[in-house]
Amino acid sequence: MFNLTGYRSMSNTLINWICISCISSSLTLLWLHYKRKRNKSFTKVLFYDPTIKSTDCNCFRSFNIDCLSPNCSSFKTKEIIFCLQRARKSMDICVFSISNKPIANEIVNAHKRGILVRIIVCNCILVISNEIKMFMRAGITLKYQENYTNSYMHHKFAIIDSTWLIHGSMNWTHQATHDNWESIMITDLQSLIVPFSIGFEKTWQKTILIPPKIRDLTKN
Amino acid sequence: MFNLTGYRSMSNTLINWICISCISSSLTLLWLHYKRKRNKSFTKVLFYDPTIKSTDCNCFRSFNIDCLSPNCSSFKTKEIIFCLQRARKSMDICVFSISNKPIANEIVNAHKRGILVRIIVCNCILVISNEIKMFMRAGITLKYQENYTNSYMHHKFAIIDSTWLIHGSMNWTHQATHDNWESIMITDLQSLIVPFSIGFEKTWQKTILIPPKIRDLTKN
Repeated sequence: MFNLTGYRSMSNTLINWICISCISSSLTLLWLHYKRKRNKSFTKVLFYDPTIKSTDCNCFRSFNIDCLSPNCSSFKTKEIIFCLQRARKSMDICVFSISNKPIANEIVNAHKRGILVRIIVCNCILVISNEIKMFMRAGITLKYQENYTNSYMHHKFAIIDSTWLIHGSMNWTHQATHDNWESIMITDLQSLIVPFSIGFEKTWQKTILIPPKIRDLTKN
Repeated sequence: MFNLTGYRSMSNTLINWICISCISSSLTLLWLHYKRKRNKSFTKVLFYDPTIKSTDCNCFRSFNIDCLSPNCSSFKTKEIIFCLQRARKSMDICVFSISNKPIANEIVNAHKRGILVRIIVCNCILVISNEIKMFMRAGITLKYQENYTNSYMHHKFAIIDSTWLIHGSMNWTHQATHDNWESIMITDLQSLIVPFSIGFEKTWQKTILIPPKIRDLTKN
């Protein structure tokens, strides 16, 4: 015998179940989407291209003009400077050579603000860069590798507040930020920041403080 | 009047609803977790450190020995070679200087396998690198920047099959892979691959093919 009432009650229960499942799954997905959007990582790639300097902007070799062209080298370097300005706790810099004046000024400013600034540079540029001398005069802890002939500390990365990583082909020099074709990335991806932080600590342990002889040179 | 049967039926319906909601939400989360695990991005950071070569492995300056130490420079360079070996369609290389023999051999092998290999190098290293000459003899399309004095094509990145990005401080030279402190990353993160692909195409348009004069030099 066919029981129509039982069948209807069963199908109603099934429809209810499907509806509730759909609603709760949608709510879960919506919540996850909101959560992911809030936690979305920030990654920016900057391409330095010297061929556009004469056509796209008028601030070549000047940081005084606030260039608004995203293709301009000065505009790109401002992204790095902006990252350094955001530092609240620490600044771990491991860059072959630093001679870009606005970047160097920002590092000294961070040190003056009480940020823990640690810098590792290549031994080959110590005595020639005025900016390195400026760091030493300001009392910033500066290290370099010892006893390596024909071996360069060639890293070009920095970690700001264990939250931001700047990494790429570019030394922080005037030539690199104005004349070269370079590529760097700024990211808050922890999958990159963690190994770079470990790498920095290892390099920091293996490098030595600038010896007094070179320190004395900076007084001239 | 208190209707106990109605109250029981209501509370049963509520329990049913909660149970179904929990089950469907859990299933959605499980499915998402499985999906995310399958699609999980791969990112590897390689730190080259010359100080460990004498203590941690015995294959310094030799690629013939299959070194199993993850700290060894040869072991790290194999990660790059492994990435080049995986190429199925294209290999876009934009590196200041290439003189590492095993890497150069892998590039030529890829070209022979029918992979579309495009290389951009700095003009300053064209006439001195035997590996560049080897590429030209093999018929690989090779470009460089024109008319730039004191300006270097200083990029150090490569995109394999629009799927893998190799990027960092390291030139693909013997000195860099054996003597220097370097950091590079290998990743399949599309948020990085897309801007680097756009950057490569722009650089490819702005560079020129090696002129016949330099091509002739490679016959010697």
